[in-house]
Amino acid sequence: MSLTLGELAARTGTEPHGDAALSIAGVCTLQDGRPDCISFLANPRYRRYLDDTRAGAVILAAADLAACPVPALVSSNPYATYARVATLLTAVETPPPGVHPTAVVGDDCHIDPTASIGPLCVIGARVAIGAGAVIGPGCVLERDVVIGANTRLVAGVVLCHGVSIGRDCLFHPGVVVGSDGFGIAKDAGRWIKVPQLGSVYIGDDVEIGANTTVDRGALEDTVIADGVKLDNQIQIAHNVQVGAHTAVAGCVGISGSARIGAHCMLAGGVGVVGHLEIADHTVVTGMSMVTKSITEPGVNSSGLAVLPSEQWNRIVARLRRLDDMARRLQALERKLAGKDA
Amino acid sequence: MSLTLGELAARTGTEPHGDAALSIAGVCTLQDGRPDCISFLANPRYRRYLDDTRAGAVILAAADLAACPVPALVSSNPYATYARVATLLTAVETPPPGVHPTAVVGDDCHIDPTASIGPLCVIGARVAIGAGAVIGPGCVLERDVVIGANTRLVAGVVLCHGVSIGRDCLFHPGVVVGSDGFGIAKDAGRWIKVPQLGSVYIGDDVEIGANTTVDRGALEDTVIADGVKLDNQIQIAHNVQVGAHTAVAGCVGISGSARIGAHCMLAGGVGVVGHLEIADHTVVTGMSMVTKSITEPGVNSSGLAVLPSEQWNRIVARLRRLDDMARRLQALERKLAGKDA
Amino acid sequence: MSLTLGELAARTGTEPHGDAALSIAGVCTLQDGRPDCISFLANPRYRRYLDDTRAGAVILAAADLAACPVPALVSSNPYATYARVATLLTAVETPPPGVHPTAVVGDDCHIDPTASIGPLCVIGARVAIGAGAVIGPGCVLERDVVIGANTRLVAGVVLCHGVSIGRDCLFHPGVVVGSDGFGIAKDAGRWIKVPQLGSVYIGDDVEIGANTTVDRGALEDTVIADGVKLDNQIQIAHNVQVGAHTAVAGCVGISGSARIGAHCMLAGGVGVVGHLEIADHTVVTGMSMVTKSITEPGVNSSGLAVLPSEQWNRIVARLRRLDDMARRLQALERKLAGKDA
Repeated sequence: MSLTLGELAARTGTEPHGDAALSIAGVCTLQDGRPDCISFLANPRYRRYLDDTRAGAVILAAADLAACPVPALVSSNPYATYARVATLLTAVETPPPGVHPTAVVGDDCHIDPTASIGPLCVIGARVAIGAGAVIGPGCVLERDVVIGANTRLVAGVVLCHGVSIGRDCLFHPGVVVGSDGFGIAKDAGRWIKVPQLGSVYIGDDVEIGANTTVDRGALEDTVIADGVKLDNQIQIAHNVQVGAHTAVAGCVGISGSARIGAHCMLAGGVGVVGHLEIADHTVVTGMSMVTKSITEPGVNSSGLAVLPSEQWNRIVARLRRLDDMARRLQALERKLAGKDA
Repeated sequence: MSLTLGELAARTGTEPHGDAALSIAGVCTLQDGRPDCISFLANPRYRRYLDDTRAGAVILAAADLAACPVPALVSSNPYATYARVATLLTAVETPPPGVHPTAVVGDDCHIDPTASIGPLCVIGARVAIGAGAVIGPGCVLERDVVIGANTRLVAGVVLCHGVSIGRDCLFHPGVVVGSDGFGIAKDAGRWIKVPQLGSVYIGDDVEIGANTTVDRGALEDTVIADGVKLDNQIQIAHNVQVGAHTAVAGCVGISGSARIGAHCMLAGGVGVVGHLEIADHTVVTGMSMVTKSITEPGVNSSGLAVLPSEQWNRIVARLRRLDDMARRLQALERKLAGKDA
Repeated sequence: MSLTLGELAARTGTEPHGDAALSIAGVCTLQDGRPDCISFLANPRYRRYLDDTRAGAVILAAADLAACPVPALVSSNPYATYARVATLLTAVETPPPGVHPTAVVGDDCHIDPTASIGPLCVIGARVAIGAGAVIGPGCVLERDVVIGANTRLVAGVVLCHGVSIGRDCLFHPGVVVGSDGFGIAKDAGRWIKVPQLGSVYIGDDVEIGANTTVDRGALEDTVIADGVKLDNQIQIAHNVQVGAHTAVAGCVGISGSARIGAHCMLAGGVGVVGHLEIADHTVVTGMSMVTKSITEPGVNSSGLAVLPSEQWNRIVARLRRLDDMARRLQALERKLAGKDA
């Protein structure tokens, strides 16, 4: 699909500079620019590629316009504009509607005739699937699952019984939603299973990355609000609540009954302890651990960056004697104060 | 299914207080109590909901009985009693016995007639499946797998060749057991694969969470003992041994040939280095790393909790100069000792 | 399959000692030796089992030969020799060539007649599969995937559209390659999806562990070079490049556009921040975080090993006041310098 620079400007509410009739067929990077494609400049580290770009046009901020050797779209948010432009220029392939003959579908399902159920899916009884939804190959939907309009499960996704998913969601391969939470009670040295009787409620416009897992609630539901974006390999435990428009990067683990606010950002590898609350607009940097509620928006850290191991090992050896060091410092202070006295 | 309070008391060995004929149809939280349901009080942080609960009855410790406005079951372990009561009140749906016509079953299998093989499963040659076992939709069992009675694979579980699973186990979607261990030998700058010739032996009453992986042994077997509970997204490497009734929370990684004792608890995100031993009854707190054997039961930690990033970054800058600080402290001590002399 | 000690020596370029006609049927550990099997001694911690081994023969270094009570193969790299010997003695079962009748295959595929497509696979349009490749049960290959000769997908692997895999690769169950990268742009408090238009290119002789995920590139490809070995539960984000013969242990997360060199080793649980470069031959130890480029080969760390929690908690309390401690130390130094002046 091709659009002119002027059409792209009109459809993204941006300002065209240069030849508005220029035909744009796709997107490219600045450094590997192609004359029929549009690139973007959002991260300053790539500005050095602007001068020599062979891209047909570039999406950029007003401040970079003067340095741009080709036509441009000026945007106050070049990366978001790029996202919209790339979406406009990319044809999404959707499989034909209907139920593939190799899919196994249970009784009393309500599958919209515009929805597509791929090959070798298993759909349990009483499942409801909205208009335009796409259930890719090899997915399993247990009984009583509800899927909103235009939601897509790419392939090999498992949704356990009763899970409810909103519209316009996108779940990548290997996602599991609604598996039992880790509910166990100790009794005379053995673990008894605590039945997991809640479900999972996921809002609209939620994206979930490959092999991420979201457990069902113990008594009430696990809830993922509208617009939440979850990367790959994340673990969301039972009864967690994730607020609207929060983004969570890969390999994060959120323990049971934690309540994450709206508009939060958790970086990769973060761990969140259970039964706490994180305020809206909280940021947690990579590989940090949250053990208490965070009541104020802000940026929080406990991750440590690598050093050469020899250096790191010396520091760790000192760290292990830090208590002793503190006491020695205090002793010196007292001694010196005594001298002064 | 409904039971009276008196019946629940009798079947859980607890003491009923108030109307023993009260009919209980399900379980609920204290704060969202329903008159036909029973709740529980195990975590002190929820005691504040007891006064106003609308639950029909509450499971609690003797010390909380006086404050309870409704009938009660008094238990020395309210959470375990709750687990039993919830199990009694919850009808487990089991699919009909038999092999679904879309399943692909190899030669010489021994599938108990009371077992259920779900749609679109693939069962290799010589697989043995015990009475009452349930193999959910889309599971793959390679050749020579053995599954004990009443074990349930929820959906999309993969068991590789020769893996042996006990009875009364529950494996959630995406579990992989018996994949090759990470065995590689360096030879002239390249990695040669070391064949993984062991298997995996899993005992009875083991629960394994969604997308958890357990590798087969290199020469001998990886072993998960009776009553072990594994949460989601855990990695168990080749030749690991996990002792009976040990519980492991989400996102833990256990490296090859580590031997974890019985009755241990590993919190979320813990990492265990290979070729070490952890004593029975050891606890490791969240996101900690075990690099040496732990020979005594106890609680062990190395995780760090978040601070506001500005504060954390100052600490890290100091930490990186800790070696220098220690030397300066020593110099001061010498200097002062010199003055005293 | 049995081979004589002499045949094994000839086929591995090693030196036989003792009865070269000894028939060897398999491999075993030193401690559980069997007379018809060969063992190996590579890790010094197992030397104590050499004296009493019942193995028929042992692969070992020249220095250990004198202590060996049975015939031996002397190798400069016993573990690599063991890997080769074990491979020679292990019959690999390969399923019969051809497409299983329950597989669903799209139009215009090129499937070599010697390749095997297992039961209940879904193969999209225009997929190309090389000679001797094995696609195990329940795999999903979206359109335009390319698989090289002799590559094996064990079971339940998902390869998204257009992904290209080399020859002699081995992917374990639950692997997902080519899922969308985590590309989101913030716009007025909401996240807009950035289309992920690149693909994934994987070289030859790459092994990928169970439930590991490799995302497709945003604009250009994610690239895994020849000979890379990835363990289980790893997350490789979009546009990452992993250099040849690098080995990555379980539970590692590598963020977008990171470039990992060749011959690197990342230990379990390591996290790598995006948009940085790691030099060839870099080692990162367990649970460390890389936040800046590493320009020189070497060993790098930031992981912390457990202590008894009481001790650890005291250290952490001191650590949180480290800034204060540093200032007090400086004050003492000034004071003492003042006294000297």
